Amino acid sequence: MPAQGERPGEFGMIARYLRPLAEDPGAFGLTDDAALMRPEPGFDLVLTKDMVAAGVHFFPDDPPESIARKALRVNLSDLAAKGANPVGYLLGLALPADWTEDWMAGFSAGLGDDQQRYGIPLLGGDTVKSPDGLMLSITALGQVPAGRIVRRSGAEVGDLIVVSGTIGDAALGLRLRLGTLDGAAAGEGASHLLDRYLHPQPRLGLAEAVRDHAHASLDISDGLIGDLSHVTRTSGVSAVVEAARIPLSQPARALVEGDLTAFASVLTGGDDYEVLTTMPEARLAAYEAAAARAGIPVTVIGRIVAGEGAPAVINDRGERIALDRASHDHF
Amino acid sequence: MPAQGERPGEFGMIARYLRPLAEDPGAFGLTDDAALMRPEPGFDLVLTKDMVAAGVHFFPDDPPESIARKALRVNLSDLAAKGANPVGYLLGLALPADWTEDWMAGFSAGLGDDQQRYGIPLLGGDTVKSPDGLMLSITALGQVPAGRIVRRSGAEVGDLIVVSGTIGDAALGLRLRLGTLDGAAAGEGASHLLDRYLHPQPRLGLAEAVRDHAHASLDISDGLIGDLSHVTRTSGVSAVVEAARIPLSQPARALVEGDLTAFASVLTGGDDYEVLTTMPEARLAAYEAAAARAGIPVTVIGRIVAGEGAPAVINDRGERIALDRASHDHF
Repeated sequence: MPAQGERPGEFGMIARYLRPLAEDPGAFGLTDDAALMRPEPGFDLVLTKDMVAAGVHFFPDDPPESIARKALRVNLSDLAAKGANPVGYLLGLALPADWTEDWMAGFSAGLGDDQQRYGIPLLGGDTVKSPDGLMLSITALGQVPAGRIVRRSGAEVGDLIVVSGTIGDAALGLRLRLGTLDGAAAGEGASHLLDRYLHPQPRLGLAEAVRDHAHASLDISDGLIGDLSHVTRTSGVSAVVEAARIPLSQPARALVEGDLTAFASVLTGGDDYEVLTTMPEARLAAYEAAAARAGIPVTVIGRIVAGEGAPAVINDRGERIALDRASHDHF
Repeated sequence: MPAQGERPGEFGMIARYLRPLAEDPGAFGLTDDAALMRPEPGFDLVLTKDMVAAGVHFFPDDPPESIARKALRVNLSDLAAKGANPVGYLLGLALPADWTEDWMAGFSAGLGDDQQRYGIPLLGGDTVKSPDGLMLSITALGQVPAGRIVRRSGAEVGDLIVVSGTIGDAALGLRLRLGTLDGAAAGEGASHLLDRYLHPQPRLGLAEAVRDHAHASLDISDGLIGDLSHVTRTSGVSAVVEAARIPLSQPARALVEGDLTAFASVLTGGDDYEVLTTMPEARLAAYEAAAARAGIPVTVIGRIVAGEGAPAVINDRGERIALDRASHDHF
């Protein structure tokens, strides 16, 4: 161990902060070039990779625990939406030259805590020097019983559109943080919105129910309407969403009532990481029951209809609400 | 398609430049959140992830075809060294805001060509805006018959140390590029060294022979002696390398004869991406024969010995050569 105050090099850093996270036998204690995974017979592997960059997906001065959690959870959210259970992940970590031991300790603690929480081991990865800001690239592996992955493209005319949790909190939290929205109406609830931006809740508790009941599924990462349009386009259908049925948290509702632009953020802002599914009406009760057992609220917000256009959002008089843009585009 | 001169957005860019690379059915045409892979019964999966960043692992103005090839090949090199055959890969692409269509076309062409060359399909990934320079994070999946991965940690006392190809070319090419070495002695061979830095040759043709014959194996990415020390440390042994037996290309030999620092680069410079294996002497002939069938030269450079210290490099009088540092550290 280096003397106090002396920062370890690459191998020392890995040994101190990352190796303790890699207890899975296939990780070889991060001492090999590659990791090993023995697939379980009868299962398909589901592979997802989400990169997050300082200044794009999080703020450089966010707590390292939070950055770690967000980087892992956005990948877990993809697995949940596909009906998959977590198997393991690989961590790509591009660290700026000025990293500190305190920062790495916090980052490692955040990852370790989430590994326990979500039951996913670190299998391997790579650490490089970033010439600029922090960047994280996580590849997560999940599994589904063979043939049971739930695609975006399976929506059928007549399906109900169901979302988990509440929509728009993270986008509103980001706007509060950026100062583009007055948070006074949210009162103390503003802290809930800020937390939702920092700490997505991957809905792994819904994975089995999604497999069992949904025709189509994805996680809402780029905005409710934009992601719904991915479902409708790949499924060759359209959709109608009833604005009044979109589930809002109490602070989000307070903001929406005072500022029309807040509702636009609910419809098109990113970072919800809730699961949007479509399913036949006959499946709804069973899906709701499974979700209730998992402690996750789910809400019907609309219906899949025939057609090819973008999803329509209607108000409580049945009039279509105009949207400037459908989707938040990190890119 | 956008009008000529108008650059597409994220989804358009993916559709135009990356979707054509994703013909594997499990990639879903890059239209879903995740990719699907059905593992072949009786095989273990080998997972590797190498990130490369502009200004660290390549030059920002390197040809996009070359950047693409290098990012993929450094991962394929890990698979080869573990005795694995390629199954598929995920691409994480952090693009600076000033990317051009020409650049993406070249990048995509380089990847597509290497996918054919090495028989590995694109399964999925993620594209994000980089706040700074280009960064690539590839996760490659390979497979080995169950239980047959070749670790770093299996070296045994008495094993021969065998390397593929020639050593040091890429490190010398990098020094020529940086202007820290006079390339006159290499003459026209300098272009070979420059090419070896840009275009690693993953030794997938050796994967089966590595599985069949090697006790321990890794690819030389951080420098011959540094990587050999990974083998000896994880195996609880030491090693002796005979300097005169290290295979050098003709231009590398010309440089080494004129400049002592060039030989230091051969021993400790990175980016060789050759395979270093250890094996019992009785296996050598069969390994050499398999390598010859694959068209890949292999050379014995030393032997695994008892002990715990760093590998020793000896000259032709048996005297130990002092090394300033064992390994190139990108970090």
